Amino acid sequence: MQIIADNIQITNPMIAKALYEMDPLPVQDLAKKCVTAGADIIDINPGPLTRDGEEKMTFLVEAVQKVCNLPLSLDTSNPSAMAAGLNACREKPIINGFSLEPAKLEKILPLATEFDCDIIGFLLYPKGMVPGNDEERLNLAVQLFAAFNEKGIEPQRLIIDPVLAPLMWEDGSRQAMELLNVIRLLPDLLGFPVKTIVGLSNLTSGQGPKEKKLLLEEIYLSMLSSAGLEMVLMNIFNQKTVSAARACDAITRQGTFSWEEVP
Amino acid sequence: MQIIADNIQITNPMIAKALYEMDPLPVQDLAKKCVTAGADIIDINPGPLTRDGEEKMTFLVEAVQKVCNLPLSLDTSNPSAMAAGLNACREKPIINGFSLEPAKLEKILPLATEFDCDIIGFLLYPKGMVPGNDEERLNLAVQLFAAFNEKGIEPQRLIIDPVLAPLMWEDGSRQAMELLNVIRLLPDLLGFPVKTIVGLSNLTSGQGPKEKKLLLEEIYLSMLSSAGLEMVLMNIFNQKTVSAARACDAITRQGTFSWEEVP
Repeated sequence: MQIIADNIQITNPMIAKALYEMDPLPVQDLAKKCVTAGADIIDINPGPLTRDGEEKMTFLVEAVQKVCNLPLSLDTSNPSAMAAGLNACREKPIINGFSLEPAKLEKILPLATEFDCDIIGFLLYPKGMVPGNDEERLNLAVQLFAAFNEKGIEPQRLIIDPVLAPLMWEDGSRQAMELLNVIRLLPDLLGFPVKTIVGLSNLTSGQGPKEKKLLLEEIYLSMLSSAGLEMVLMNIFNQKTVSAARACDAITRQGTFSWEEVP
Repeated sequence: MQIIADNIQITNPMIAKALYEMDPLPVQDLAKKCVTAGADIIDINPGPLTRDGEEKMTFLVEAVQKVCNLPLSLDTSNPSAMAAGLNACREKPIINGFSLEPAKLEKILPLATEFDCDIIGFLLYPKGMVPGNDEERLNLAVQLFAAFNEKGIEPQRLIIDPVLAPLMWEDGSRQAMELLNVIRLLPDLLGFPVKTIVGLSNLTSGQGPKEKKLLLEEIYLSMLSSAGLEMVLMNIFNQKTVSAARACDAITRQGTFSWEEVP
């Protein structure tokens, strides 16, 4: 399983301040810590970037690239900022992401063609609503894939995020179990081995004891892994969850088992 | 998920000695610790009991029942010892267990009819060989259920143990993944919501670092839980695995999520 660190994001006040001041050091410090903690990919999420988007996304990409060689994934709803960030990337990044929302289909999805890179597609309704069950998610996947296909991009460039609902929602645990089914069914439904990703922090978003949240993350990630999940977006500093992800690989990858793969 | 503590077993030298000396205190001490650690059911496994089987199984059942009210599961291949143990049980125990092995079909399975209790059926070949893949396991399940059905026992009395192969076997991780599929498919295959159980210690049997074994147990139990596992036989003193089992329930039981169910 590939782990995408979600730590470089605008909701982190330290990153917000660094971005405001265009100070690369705090960003680079955090990026280096993500590498040390075992990230495979680093997500850069500066939010919608309503002002100076191109400059700011370029600044972030360049700052991170100066201190690490990991591939990046870029997360902004601002298409010109996204394009600027993609231009600044040395290695092919992942576009994070698009959905059936018209603005995303028109402005973000075509960047995957233009830059020939992987793109995450969210199973959300055109107005951003989260689907309520597995049937709705599978229907959205068919529509999303159809829209993706129209652009003539190779199918294997699509990474689907089925959009995890928080456990604390009224039907959260039902949705969590159904999501496993969606991940299991997607390759057959779409007719190719489509990759899937989940934003793990959604599972326990809201108030709750940190230790319990970590236990639930670890357990649900194991369930996701056995359902076929290939990528996870998560807080890379939750080291127990990182260990769990690596141990999942030792079980699911089906080669000869080795203790050395278990952290 | 119901947790059956596998701690009272003959391979524990303390239990072997207590059984040899017919000294109830060490057995009772261990049984009380199993209760405290959170067991739902206590397994009593004195091995094949080649001498004084009836007396010894009765002694163990009575010793444990004096200090705890949990249901028991009785594990011996000696049919008369099993019958004596079943007779001594205050509450309906679980018979652990039978397989397609002729001696088990002839002598152990009928005890489920006689004592009207649940029985664990192992997916093993008649000579005790472990099946090599999911197709073999599903075939054995059909044969096992047919043999079970002949006795006129209610289907819901059957608990199937698909027999987990150690990860360290040449194809152990493939088998571990296939086992999840078997658990998922069994209810449809047999046409009723058949319960399943797994002996978790098998996963990491053999040499290996204790901490890594515990992490793998925790992760694989989460995978089993999402596949529908309803019972696990395990070392109840692995408290992290017990916590994981309870947290699995908080996700899989699909009612309203509550932090109080997460340990």
